[in-house]
Amino acid sequence: MSSQFPILKLKKNEERRIKAGHLWVFSNEVNAIETPFDGFEVGQLVDVQSHNNKSLGIAYINPVSLICARMMSRDPKYPPSQSLLVHRIKVALSLREHFFDRPYYRLVFGESDFLPGLVVDRYGDVLVVQITTAGMESMKQDIVMALEKVIKPKHMLLRNDSTAREREGLNMYQEVVLGDPADNVFLEDMGVKYHAPIQSGQKTGWYYDQRMNRQALSGLVRGARVLDVFSYIGAWGVKAAVEGATEVVCIDASAKALEHVAENAELNNVVDKMSGIQGDAFTAMKELREEREKFDLVIVDPPAFIKRKKDFKEGREAYRRLNQLAIQLLSKDGILVSGSCSHHLPRHELQQLMLRASRHLDRNMQILIQGYQGPDHPVHPAIPETEYLKAIFARVIPA
Amino acid sequence: MSSQFPILKLKKNEERRIKAGHLWVFSNEVNAIETPFDGFEVGQLVDVQSHNNKSLGIAYINPVSLICARMMSRDPKYPPSQSLLVHRIKVALSLREHFFDRPYYRLVFGESDFLPGLVVDRYGDVLVVQITTAGMESMKQDIVMALEKVIKPKHMLLRNDSTAREREGLNMYQEVVLGDPADNVFLEDMGVKYHAPIQSGQKTGWYYDQRMNRQALSGLVRGARVLDVFSYIGAWGVKAAVEGATEVVCIDASAKALEHVAENAELNNVVDKMSGIQGDAFTAMKELREEREKFDLVIVDPPAFIKRKKDFKEGREAYRRLNQLAIQLLSKDGILVSGSCSHHLPRHELQQLMLRASRHLDRNMQILIQGYQGPDHPVHPAIPETEYLKAIFARVIPA
Repeated sequence: MSSQFPILKLKKNEERRIKAGHLWVFSNEVNAIETPFDGFEVGQLVDVQSHNNKSLGIAYINPVSLICARMMSRDPKYPPSQSLLVHRIKVALSLREHFFDRPYYRLVFGESDFLPGLVVDRYGDVLVVQITTAGMESMKQDIVMALEKVIKPKHMLLRNDSTAREREGLNMYQEVVLGDPADNVFLEDMGVKYHAPIQSGQKTGWYYDQRMNRQALSGLVRGARVLDVFSYIGAWGVKAAVEGATEVVCIDASAKALEHVAENAELNNVVDKMSGIQGDAFTAMKELREEREKFDLVIVDPPAFIKRKKDFKEGREAYRRLNQLAIQLLSKDGILVSGSCSHHLPRHELQQLMLRASRHLDRNMQILIQGYQGPDHPVHPAIPETEYLKAIFARVIPA
Repeated sequence: MSSQFPILKLKKNEERRIKAGHLWVFSNEVNAIETPFDGFEVGQLVDVQSHNNKSLGIAYINPVSLICARMMSRDPKYPPSQSLLVHRIKVALSLREHFFDRPYYRLVFGESDFLPGLVVDRYGDVLVVQITTAGMESMKQDIVMALEKVIKPKHMLLRNDSTAREREGLNMYQEVVLGDPADNVFLEDMGVKYHAPIQSGQKTGWYYDQRMNRQALSGLVRGARVLDVFSYIGAWGVKAAVEGATEVVCIDASAKALEHVAENAELNNVVDKMSGIQGDAFTAMKELREEREKFDLVIVDPPAFIKRKKDFKEGREAYRRLNQLAIQLLSKDGILVSGSCSHHLPRHELQQLMLRASRHLDRNMQILIQGYQGPDHPVHPAIPETEYLKAIFARVIPA
């Protein structure tokens, strides 16, 4: 079989995962004698073939990465191109438009939208793009043009400053590629208005992924006193206030994040109900405990405590301590909302550490809602890594 | 330590699971030499003690069952009594009232509400009670009186005809213990009206557990052609029609169930949109496939194909075939809603068999929503058996 692209040959049986739908080739799966890594350029397109020379499709390669290739097309007749990118973005857009009336969502979620290494968040006519792999970086111009074609945005920012780029040997930068986006952009999230800092904030500025779980606060927080730990710019807290909480306290380490909370509270006319505590979450929660403060609902939605598999034990213990502190701040029959965005903390483990925290305090627990990432963060069922978000709502009652 | 109840002594280390929050004692965990099973009466209360004579609480016992005892109280000072039942039912009620404005829900979900062996569904002023263990059966009068006290219903039916009773050596019967309930009772489920046959229908007449997942149809089915396989009395199908589907086809083996679908469609003024196919689901779906019928959204929410662990392989294959047939009936970019109420089919296995079905047909799949049992079916995090319901929404797209 001839091909316009250099061949990346897999070892025997290593085609199975790809055939089952996964998009990744690991470097130890490659027959590096037949197709040595030093024969490839970083980011170039390759024809991935099984040991018996059957093409599995076209991937981009990064010889220095553990995940050395990611599939872009199953059909060698349709290799990656601007028109393939346009097609994929249209398919991604149609999914979001099916679920959401308003143009505020994650438009592209990497592998799950068959665009590995690419994330795009949409804030109306502003797009924030994050490229995390060398293969996608080499298609940067086509990506920008494809997004312009399909979405016709006014502004586009590349937020190429994710640490994931280090593993790919890429530099970190921000770049405005269209228009002149402000740092603070407007968005709506389940009926609530926010401003998010797309340049100076975390990641792409906003976390659409917890949207459906924030919506689940509706009806649960009426008349409640609510604590939002790791509040960032108030996604959960402002939602709770809008949904009828009588008081919301936000804890965050960043003074700037708390300024954004105030601004977002203002936007929704709930300033009177909201206050902030700046400081380390664990310390602040211990102080609240010493002051015998109680809340009807406590949200703990921290940044990933387990970024890599090897951090599992330590990270799990941090989650356990966090949840235990949260339970101690709950009033009788209160509700704990426990989030985790660590892929390496399986849902079952989160449940179990919540249970252990409650048993340690001699409480019983009932799990009421098992929240997942929203539909603009689809899960690719062949790629477990695409499933990462948890938000477990549990009632804590006296034993 | 003396106790008013006979002692059930556990073997060494067998107290651990109970201490971690579980409510079940298995017969092989009992020190049957010190406390032989033939010394107990079926359904009587016992003081469960660890090997070193520490009381773990009060349970009811059934010496003929594999699960030989279920914990009712952690504190020997508060043994099971009518007032304990009243307390537990009040705690259960407060949870439901927190989530639901209208009195239509599962009021008591067994172990998860710390009332092992007891299920109560509420249809306004009608209660349907299901007792599945000998211990609960022996408290029947107290249960009825406690429910009367807390809920003040007009009608109460014991639907004690579950096959689970066989394992406990109990007979099967239905009994009206209050008022004169009609077979067909009114209920509301996420804004939709239904009549459910509480005497002649499946289980307690209705499945509240899929409620939140049916709600997720909202916004997804506008203008869609929908197929509801294993429709029973139309919970999913009528909801889809109310939410704006242009056409809904229900498949069920029971002609009577389809009559109820028609009645429920009538109740919500969506009769014109709905039709039924009576017959075996697999056969009916194959016929639709031969006729090249296509649907924008297909719901397959079958009865449990895996009732016991030993049925796993066969049952999983049945789920796979069902999902594959459903995918073949989907129009381009259509959505598959795949339900399973088998505890023995883990969510991950359901995802994987859906993936295999889609890959077999050379389609790609994106998982959009991971639905769980609603909050009136809380999960007891120490008792994996209480977590059973899945409803996975996936988009199926060309590869």
